[in-house]
Amino acid sequence: MTVDPSRPIAVRILGTGDYLPTRQVASDSFDRRWGKPAGWTLRHAGVGMRHYAGADEPASLMGERAARAALAAAQLQPHDVDCVICACSVMEQAIPCSAALLHARLGLQGSGLPAFDINATCLSFIAALDLAACAIAAGRYRRVLIVSSEIASVGLNWDDVDTAPLFGDGAAAVVLGADNGDSGSQLLAAHLETYSEGIAHCRVRAGGTRLRLEHGVEALRAGSLFEMNGRATYRLAAAKLPGFLQRLLHKAGVELAQLQRIVPHQASAKALRHLQVALRLAPDTLVDVIGARGNQMAASIPSALHQAIAGGRIVRGDLIGLVGSGAGLAFGGAVLRY
Amino acid sequence: MTVDPSRPIAVRILGTGDYLPTRQVASDSFDRRWGKPAGWTLRHAGVGMRHYAGADEPASLMGERAARAALAAAQLQPHDVDCVICACSVMEQAIPCSAALLHARLGLQGSGLPAFDINATCLSFIAALDLAACAIAAGRYRRVLIVSSEIASVGLNWDDVDTAPLFGDGAAAVVLGADNGDSGSQLLAAHLETYSEGIAHCRVRAGGTRLRLEHGVEALRAGSLFEMNGRATYRLAAAKLPGFLQRLLHKAGVELAQLQRIVPHQASAKALRHLQVALRLAPDTLVDVIGARGNQMAASIPSALHQAIAGGRIVRGDLIGLVGSGAGLAFGGAVLRY
Repeated sequence: MTVDPSRPIAVRILGTGDYLPTRQVASDSFDRRWGKPAGWTLRHAGVGMRHYAGADEPASLMGERAARAALAAAQLQPHDVDCVICACSVMEQAIPCSAALLHARLGLQGSGLPAFDINATCLSFIAALDLAACAIAAGRYRRVLIVSSEIASVGLNWDDVDTAPLFGDGAAAVVLGADNGDSGSQLLAAHLETYSEGIAHCRVRAGGTRLRLEHGVEALRAGSLFEMNGRATYRLAAAKLPGFLQRLLHKAGVELAQLQRIVPHQASAKALRHLQVALRLAPDTLVDVIGARGNQMAASIPSALHQAIAGGRIVRGDLIGLVGSGAGLAFGGAVLRY
Repeated sequence: MTVDPSRPIAVRILGTGDYLPTRQVASDSFDRRWGKPAGWTLRHAGVGMRHYAGADEPASLMGERAARAALAAAQLQPHDVDCVICACSVMEQAIPCSAALLHARLGLQGSGLPAFDINATCLSFIAALDLAACAIAAGRYRRVLIVSSEIASVGLNWDDVDTAPLFGDGAAAVVLGADNGDSGSQLLAAHLETYSEGIAHCRVRAGGTRLRLEHGVEALRAGSLFEMNGRATYRLAAAKLPGFLQRLLHKAGVELAQLQRIVPHQASAKALRHLQVALRLAPDTLVDVIGARGNQMAASIPSALHQAIAGGRIVRGDLIGLVGSGAGLAFGGAVLRY
């Protein structure tokens, strides 16, 4: 695969926000569940704490909270955006799309503002950011609200020591706006690659038209849980990541060393360490927040981005990279001047 | 809501295709089921025939067939496109996204071609067409494959005489390409409006993170069926449609009378008659194919578009409109020079 350099798009991240559900679960509760010595789960998963949504915290509510935080940071109201995009892996209900549910929670019921979902599993935020930027460049919208809200906890297999402690629930949001070009903020490039040879490596077989209640309660129950072939995922990811990153940087016209901060998908502690070592990054380049939240699926990248911005680790003018891998198997990234 | 005129985007529909599952169900089978006189269901629903997918016809397979037909019409192979978009209301499985499943069926497993889903329920194709055009305009892609594949039959309540006979399964696909501007083909405008005051008018409550097996088999079974408040939907649609259409045409800079063909979402025979009367259309303007297929959700618009093109009712140079309403409640449309 060869790629040409991209034309930068003058867009600016106007505000970011996040939301964490109230219930916190520490790793020692997994130690007790599995009869492991204290500290085993933390060492095994690299995640000390994760949050799980309660029945009173549906994805659209978490998304609303994150969206209101991002809008406040941008000093905007919901009606000030032109478009509402949900960028989530898993829907709240089959119909209508998640963005319509969020739209209602934001008080936009009678507004007519367009709302739709973009889904590239854990890379949904990257796909949505790029398409929103393209739509802004084409003059379709001036300000787009992108919200990723995920409830991973309902699909976890509590007997699987590799995946159960890895995931956490949560939401994050970004307001993206057209820029006059003076501020220097821009999306230099975005890039996605899907290798569907890995479609079965990370999956939830139910939740759609294929595996349904009529196939039996036990089949549905089993198919509703997240299944991961860790070894196959790692092998395919390790093989494809270097080339993918090279193409992303080539499109952006920058060298890896120019990136002041890299915001990765918080796939796993192991994946973050692999990225750190494989790219020989300076110690503080990688934004690593998995320990306190776990892998929040599509919400991971905007959540880590928000935390880095809120904590002052990303400041205006910084050249940053967003990168990740997700089910599919897919790779995605973006290079921005914040 | 006020809108500004759009900048046209030089894109061209390079090919279209569709796929119908093999099992056909005529309306008299509903007459017999419900103990109605012969012809009752046909008169009531305005749909004489619909197709239902079998277990050997998952959405990704139907999508593959439609995609291969569209690629053949464009004299292209799967590897000749830059991006694969699934524009469906309902997924085949929760993870990964439907486009990754389609990607594998198209033999693109090792290609790295990006794949993601865009979901605006029945308006998914319109949303995808517009975002694909914006991405082409920004130089991201040269050719995008957009596929809508829907299996409505698994979510129908067979006791509901208003909705059960209305829907059919099927898939349709379009290959959209960058145009050098010489051919005259372009997307003049696209426009979406969501009125989430109507989120509960058309819905499937299950199929996501909210209503799950742990809430009980019967609750899940009931929540997995399509629910429609026909009266409320009609009232909201009738109130919002005229303004929506006006804004779509204003963005495109054309008058209604200039549209040589209008391809509507095949929502229901009643909705099509309403559109015909409300817009005072010349008899042959509206592409009405619901009688032989039913409402195929997001596949309806590209399927009707394909049939109109294949049947010579839309030819190169024609100015055409795509319009529809969907769950959300939402309205969407596009004006193209074919």
